[in-house]
Amino acid sequence: MSDNSFGRLFRFTTWGESHGPALGVVVDGCPPNLAISIEAIQRDLDRRKPGQSRFTTQRREADEVRILSGVFEDERTDGLRTTGTPISMLIENTDQRSKDYSEIRDKYRPGHADFTYHQKYGIRDYRGGGRSSARETAARVAAGAVARLVIPGVTIRASLVQVGPHKIDYANFDWAEVDRNPFFCADPQAATFWADYLDGIRKAGNSVGAVIEVVAEGVPPGWGAPIYGKLSSDLASAMMSINAVKGVEIGAGMEAASLTGIDNADQMRAGANAPYFLSNSAGGILGGISNGDPIVVRFAVKPTSSILTPRQTVTVENEDTDVVTKGRHDPCVGIRAVPIGEAMMACVLADHFLRHRGQTGRDGGVGY
Amino acid sequence: MSDNSFGRLFRFTTWGESHGPALGVVVDGCPPNLAISIEAIQRDLDRRKPGQSRFTTQRREADEVRILSGVFEDERTDGLRTTGTPISMLIENTDQRSKDYSEIRDKYRPGHADFTYHQKYGIRDYRGGGRSSARETAARVAAGAVARLVIPGVTIRASLVQVGPHKIDYANFDWAEVDRNPFFCADPQAATFWADYLDGIRKAGNSVGAVIEVVAEGVPPGWGAPIYGKLSSDLASAMMSINAVKGVEIGAGMEAASLTGIDNADQMRAGANAPYFLSNSAGGILGGISNGDPIVVRFAVKPTSSILTPRQTVTVENEDTDVVTKGRHDPCVGIRAVPIGEAMMACVLADHFLRHRGQTGRDGGVGY
Amino acid sequence: MSDNSFGRLFRFTTWGESHGPALGVVVDGCPPNLAISIEAIQRDLDRRKPGQSRFTTQRREADEVRILSGVFEDERTDGLRTTGTPISMLIENTDQRSKDYSEIRDKYRPGHADFTYHQKYGIRDYRGGGRSSARETAARVAAGAVARLVIPGVTIRASLVQVGPHKIDYANFDWAEVDRNPFFCADPQAATFWADYLDGIRKAGNSVGAVIEVVAEGVPPGWGAPIYGKLSSDLASAMMSINAVKGVEIGAGMEAASLTGIDNADQMRAGANAPYFLSNSAGGILGGISNGDPIVVRFAVKPTSSILTPRQTVTVENEDTDVVTKGRHDPCVGIRAVPIGEAMMACVLADHFLRHRGQTGRDGGVGY
Amino acid sequence: MSDNSFGRLFRFTTWGESHGPALGVVVDGCPPNLAISIEAIQRDLDRRKPGQSRFTTQRREADEVRILSGVFEDERTDGLRTTGTPISMLIENTDQRSKDYSEIRDKYRPGHADFTYHQKYGIRDYRGGGRSSARETAARVAAGAVARLVIPGVTIRASLVQVGPHKIDYANFDWAEVDRNPFFCADPQAATFWADYLDGIRKAGNSVGAVIEVVAEGVPPGWGAPIYGKLSSDLASAMMSINAVKGVEIGAGMEAASLTGIDNADQMRAGANAPYFLSNSAGGILGGISNGDPIVVRFAVKPTSSILTPRQTVTVENEDTDVVTKGRHDPCVGIRAVPIGEAMMACVLADHFLRHRGQTGRDGGVGY
Repeated sequence: MSDNSFGRLFRFTTWGESHGPALGVVVDGCPPNLAISIEAIQRDLDRRKPGQSRFTTQRREADEVRILSGVFEDERTDGLRTTGTPISMLIENTDQRSKDYSEIRDKYRPGHADFTYHQKYGIRDYRGGGRSSARETAARVAAGAVARLVIPGVTIRASLVQVGPHKIDYANFDWAEVDRNPFFCADPQAATFWADYLDGIRKAGNSVGAVIEVVAEGVPPGWGAPIYGKLSSDLASAMMSINAVKGVEIGAGMEAASLTGIDNADQMRAGANAPYFLSNSAGGILGGISNGDPIVVRFAVKPTSSILTPRQTVTVENEDTDVVTKGRHDPCVGIRAVPIGEAMMACVLADHFLRHRGQTGRDGGVGY
Repeated sequence: MSDNSFGRLFRFTTWGESHGPALGVVVDGCPPNLAISIEAIQRDLDRRKPGQSRFTTQRREADEVRILSGVFEDERTDGLRTTGTPISMLIENTDQRSKDYSEIRDKYRPGHADFTYHQKYGIRDYRGGGRSSARETAARVAAGAVARLVIPGVTIRASLVQVGPHKIDYANFDWAEVDRNPFFCADPQAATFWADYLDGIRKAGNSVGAVIEVVAEGVPPGWGAPIYGKLSSDLASAMMSINAVKGVEIGAGMEAASLTGIDNADQMRAGANAPYFLSNSAGGILGGISNGDPIVVRFAVKPTSSILTPRQTVTVENEDTDVVTKGRHDPCVGIRAVPIGEAMMACVLADHFLRHRGQTGRDGGVGY
Repeated sequence: MSDNSFGRLFRFTTWGESHGPALGVVVDGCPPNLAISIEAIQRDLDRRKPGQSRFTTQRREADEVRILSGVFEDERTDGLRTTGTPISMLIENTDQRSKDYSEIRDKYRPGHADFTYHQKYGIRDYRGGGRSSARETAARVAAGAVARLVIPGVTIRASLVQVGPHKIDYANFDWAEVDRNPFFCADPQAATFWADYLDGIRKAGNSVGAVIEVVAEGVPPGWGAPIYGKLSSDLASAMMSINAVKGVEIGAGMEAASLTGIDNADQMRAGANAPYFLSNSAGGILGGISNGDPIVVRFAVKPTSSILTPRQTVTVENEDTDVVTKGRHDPCVGIRAVPIGEAMMACVLADHFLRHRGQTGRDGGVGY
Repeated sequence: MSDNSFGRLFRFTTWGESHGPALGVVVDGCPPNLAISIEAIQRDLDRRKPGQSRFTTQRREADEVRILSGVFEDERTDGLRTTGTPISMLIENTDQRSKDYSEIRDKYRPGHADFTYHQKYGIRDYRGGGRSSARETAARVAAGAVARLVIPGVTIRASLVQVGPHKIDYANFDWAEVDRNPFFCADPQAATFWADYLDGIRKAGNSVGAVIEVVAEGVPPGWGAPIYGKLSSDLASAMMSINAVKGVEIGAGMEAASLTGIDNADQMRAGANAPYFLSNSAGGILGGISNGDPIVVRFAVKPTSSILTPRQTVTVENEDTDVVTKGRHDPCVGIRAVPIGEAMMACVLADHFLRHRGQTGRDGGVGY
C-alpha cells in the first residue's frame, strides 16, 4: 500500500536507482535476538545476481551487502544478533558504465516505465531505468533473507515452471534440481529443453516470459488476517510488485474457474492429532487464512522489454521514431525472479506470523 | 494490508457478519463537496443483491443502505453533499432465518473458511459463515459507489468472461449487453449458452468457477505509486481480497509468460497531443503507473464450495464425517462478483487519484 | 496519523456528527475469545454522558450503545465473546432538538472549529459543531471499554487535578473519591471548593479550563516502540486528539525543564526479583518504553468556547459581528474529559501490548 | 505510530545506532522536481552538530551527509532535483572512540533507556546508548531539511525559551538573535544569563532541562485532518518522539487550564480579504486544523541524565551499585533540540500539506 515500503509489522523500505551510487533496504520490526549472518544474506543475493549464466544480463555487479545497523555482537551474545531496531542494508552499484544516455533520455522504450514515470513525476532518472530498474529487487532479496530468520520452521522454495509456452512436467519435479541448472528449475528435462529454446530466442534478438512457482511448507494453520489483510491478498500484492509481473495465482489459480465444486473443494479427513486435506486446490489458504497445507503461489513475468529488434516508439517530444535497446539484458527476466519470489513470500509470511502472534498470543492455530 | 480496512487516502473499513443484525462500512478520506445520492449507492447494491435470477442464491435481502454520517444538505448546498468526514453506511440483515445451526457448528465445510477461522481465532460465528460470508461484499459495493464519485471522468465496467471452461467470444463483446442478461456478460451468445450449462450444473448438485474482467477507461497517465504501491499491486490485493478469488491478471496476465518481447511490448506512436499505444498487453499499467490506456484486470473465482453433493470432511472433534451444504447458494458465485470487482477497481483508483494529487499537485500526467 | 482511525494493531475508527442520526466506532484487531458485556461498555459511557450534574451540559442523551458485530455467544462459549473480527458499536443521537441553526450557520464561533472546517472542506455540518463536536468522544469511550478487556492486568484511572488556576492537594489524593463527586476528583476538598468556584463561573456566563491526570498501573516493562512509536508519542497524540486539549505531559512534564539531572533521573535499587525505581519523574516511560512504574499522563483542556458572554467574530461573508453561544454547554468541558482520557490510555496500551507481543512473543519484559 | 517511521504521505524512516558505522534516513513521498542541494541539508545538520560550544557535548562528529538516491541532475533539470522516489541520506559515525564499555554494559544508567531496552528486547547495543542515543536526531534533521523544500511558503523557526527555571522575557524576543548565541535563543539577555548559569551547573557535575518554542509562519488555513490526524496530535507525537521530551504544548498549552472562556477564545475580525484573529491562544490550530495564524508549539526537555554526580542504580544482575556517567555529554540537551524541533515541525507540516492537497485538491483553505 505504501509507496516504497512493504509489510505491517515486519516492514521494509527500499531505496535506490539503477545507476546511483548504491541501493538498499531498511527492515523495521524484526524480532530481537535472532542469530543473523551476513553470509546467509549474501548467499540469497548471489542467487539473484546478474551475469551467472548466458541466460541473464551480463551486467557485472558484486552485489555485496553491508549491514549498517540493527545487529549487535559481544562476548555474551553467541554471535551476531538482531536487536529489534531497524536493520539497514546497503549494496553499492559498481558496474554503471559511463556511457551515452542520450537515446534513452530522448525516447520512451516500449514495455518500460519510461513514459509513465515521466508522466507521473515530470522528471526521471533514465539511466538504466532509474528506480524502475530490476536492480531494486536486490534490496527485496536482502529483506527476504532476514524474513526467513523470523520463521525458521518454514521452508520456502521456488522453481521456474514455464518459459515461453513451455511448461515443466510436474512428474519430474524435484526440488534438489533447482540449484543444478541455470533456470532454478525443478524439472531437469525442462531445463535442458529451455537452454536450447532460449539460445534461439536470444539469437533472434527477442525475449520470452516465464512463470515462477513459490511454495512455503511448514506454515501452521491460522496465519492471515481477513478481510483485506488476507494472506492471499498480501501475496498477490507482493508478487505483483515485482518488476514485469502481470499475473498471480494461489493454488488452482485461474484454472479454478474451470473446475466444478465437486473437484475443487479440498476434502478433509481426521488425522492423528488434527485434520488433513486430501488435495490442495486451495494452495494452503482458505478465507485468507493458512490451513496448514503448503502455500502455493505462481506468478507470470512478461518477456524482457529490452530487445535487439527495433520497435516503434516516440520521442519525449512526441515524434515518431524507432528504438533498439542495446546493452546487457536478460532474454528471460523471469529466471532471476525465482529468488525474488521466494524473498517476497518470506516477507509476507514473517509479517503475518508477527501479526497473528500479536492478535492471538499464539504462534499458529489453536491445535498447534 | 490492514485487516478490515482497504486504501490509504480513500480508505474504507467494513464490519459485520452474515447473520448478525447488520453489516456496514465506514469510508474515510473522501473529498468534500461531492454530490452524493442514496439512490446511486442503492443502484450498485441492487446489482450485487442475491435472488435476482435462478443462477444466484435465493436468500432474500433487501440490502437497503442507510447513510449515517459524512453527508450534509441545507438550502445552500445544491442537494446532498459529502463533507469530507467519515461516511458511515449500514445495511440490515433481514433474512437470517432461524434454523438449526448444529451441523455447520460441528463440521468444517470443505472449501470454506470454517476450519481456518477456528484455527486462527479459537471461536467462530458459524451461522452462514459469519465474517467469511460473501455478504461482506455488500459493504464494498457501497464503498465503491462512493469511490466512483471521486473519479467522475473514469468509466468502470465489468463483464463475466468465463463460466467453467466456457469463455466468451471477444468478437461479440458489447458493453451494452451486460445489463441484458443475468450473467453481467458482454457476449450475449455466451450468456445464452451459460444459462443451459448452469442449469445442468445446478441440477447435478454441483457448481462452477468463473472469470470476471474489469475495465476502467478514462484513467489519465500517472496514477500509481511505485514500488510497493503499484497500481497493479493494489489491484491484485483488492481483487484477491474478494471471497473465493484464486487468481488475478493485469493485461496479458498469465499469458504474458507465453509471449515474446516482440509481441508483448506495446509500441507507441505520436498522437495529436500525446503519444498513444498500438496495443494494450500492459493492461494500461507500466511500472505500476497508469499509461492512459484502459486498465484491464481479470480475476478467477473458484466454484461455490457449498454444494448438494456430499463431501468428506471432519467434525470439530477431528472425526471423519460427510457434509452436504443445504440451503440457498449460488451455483456460480462468480456472477455476483462482477459488481464487486467494479467496486474494488473504483476504490483502488479513487485512492490512487488522491495519492497522486497529494504528491504531485496534478490530477494526472504532466501532459494532462 | 490516520484521519478518523487510531492505533496500529488495536485500531479503531470513529464516525458521526453531533446532530446526525447516530455516531459509532469500529474496533479492529481485538483479540478473540475475550469475555465482553454490553453492560461494561455502557458503564463507561454513562460516566461520560452529559447532564449528570449542574456542571456539565444539560443535553439529554441516553448514549445507549449497541454492538452490531464482532461478538458471539452460543451454548459453548460461556457468555458473550469477541471473535477477533471488527466490533461495530453504534449510539443513536436522540436529543438533537429541532431549532433554528441560522446563527451558527452564518457566524464563526470563536474558539470553535467552525472557521477551520469551513476553510478545509468548503462545506460544514454546523449543527452542534458537526464532526468537531465532543459527542465524537462517546465513540472513543466505547473503544476504550473494549481496550480494557485486552489488558486485564492493567488498572487505568483518572482524576481531575486542576480547574481554572485551582489545583488539587496531592496529600488528599484518594482514588476512591473519584466517583463520589461530580468532578471525578481524587481530592474531596478540591471538589468542594470547585463546586462553588464553578457556580460563580457559570453565573458569570463564563467557563474555565482544567487538567486531567490519567494513571495506568500494572503495565509491565517493555511496552512501547521506539523511535516514532514511543509509548509517550502515542499517548501525546492520543490525548491531544481529544477536543480542546492544548497540552500533554508525561511524568514530570513541562516541569522537567526546571529540574536538574540530580533530581530528575529516577534512581534504581535491587528488588527481590527485579529492580525498582526510587521515584517516578519518568512517568513510567524511559526511551519511549514502559519501565514497570505507573504510567502518568496529564493533559490540559481549554475552557469551553461556548459561553453566554458576547464575543467579537465575523460572518461567513467576512463581516464583523458578535456572537453569544446559547444552548446547553459545559462550564468546564474538562470534567467530562476524565473518562475520555482513561479510554485513550486504554486504547494506546492495548495497542502497544499487541505490538510488543507481536514483535517479541512475550507479554512484557524479559524478566516478566 | 510506526516504530521507526514518521508521517503518512511525506514519510521518513530512520535507522542507525550511536556507535555503529553510520546512521541515516529514507524520505519517501517527497514531491518531484523540487530543487535540492546538499549544502542546505548540511547547513541544518551543522546547527544540530555536537561540539559547537562548551554547552554541548564534546563528541566530534562531522555529520557529513550523503544523498544516495531520489535526486537527479542533467543538462535539462536546472540543478539537482528530487525525482519523487525515496531519498536516502547517510551520515557516517566517525568519533566512536574505542573504549571500555564494561560499565555501561553491566549497569543501567538512571534516566536512560538502558533498562527498558533490555526489558523489551532482551539484548541491547549499549555503546553510547545504541539506538536510544540522541544521535538518531541527526537523521530527523536531514529529513526536516527536505520537508522544508515541500512547503516553501512556510517559515519555521525555534528558540530556546527556558533553561532550568529561567525563562526568557518575550519583550526581548527577536528571531535575529537566535543565531548569535550558543543557545539558539531569541532573547539575548536570557542567553547571557544562561551562560553563567550553565557554567555553574556543569561545574557542579549536574545538568538542567529546557523548553523550546517552535513557530511556523505562513501556514494557510485548512491543513490538518480531524479527528486522530489533527495537526496538534501529529505535532504532539512528533515532539514527544524527540529524546528526553516530557511535555508538549500548543498555543496557551498547559496554561489554557487556568484561563477562562472569555480570555481564551481568540476573537475574530473581518480583514480585507479574509477574517483575522485578535489573539493566538489557539497556537494557530482550531479543531486540529490550521487557522492561518502562526503555529506555536513548545516542548520540555528533561535534564541530561548522564551526569558526573554518582547515582544509585543496579547491575544487569539486579545488584545495587552506583554509576557515574563519564564521557562527553551536554549539560543541557535541550539546546541541541532547537533545530530538531524545527525539523519535526517541518516534517509534520509537509505531510499535512500533501494530505490536504490529496483530499481537497487545494493547497490551503477555500479562500486561499
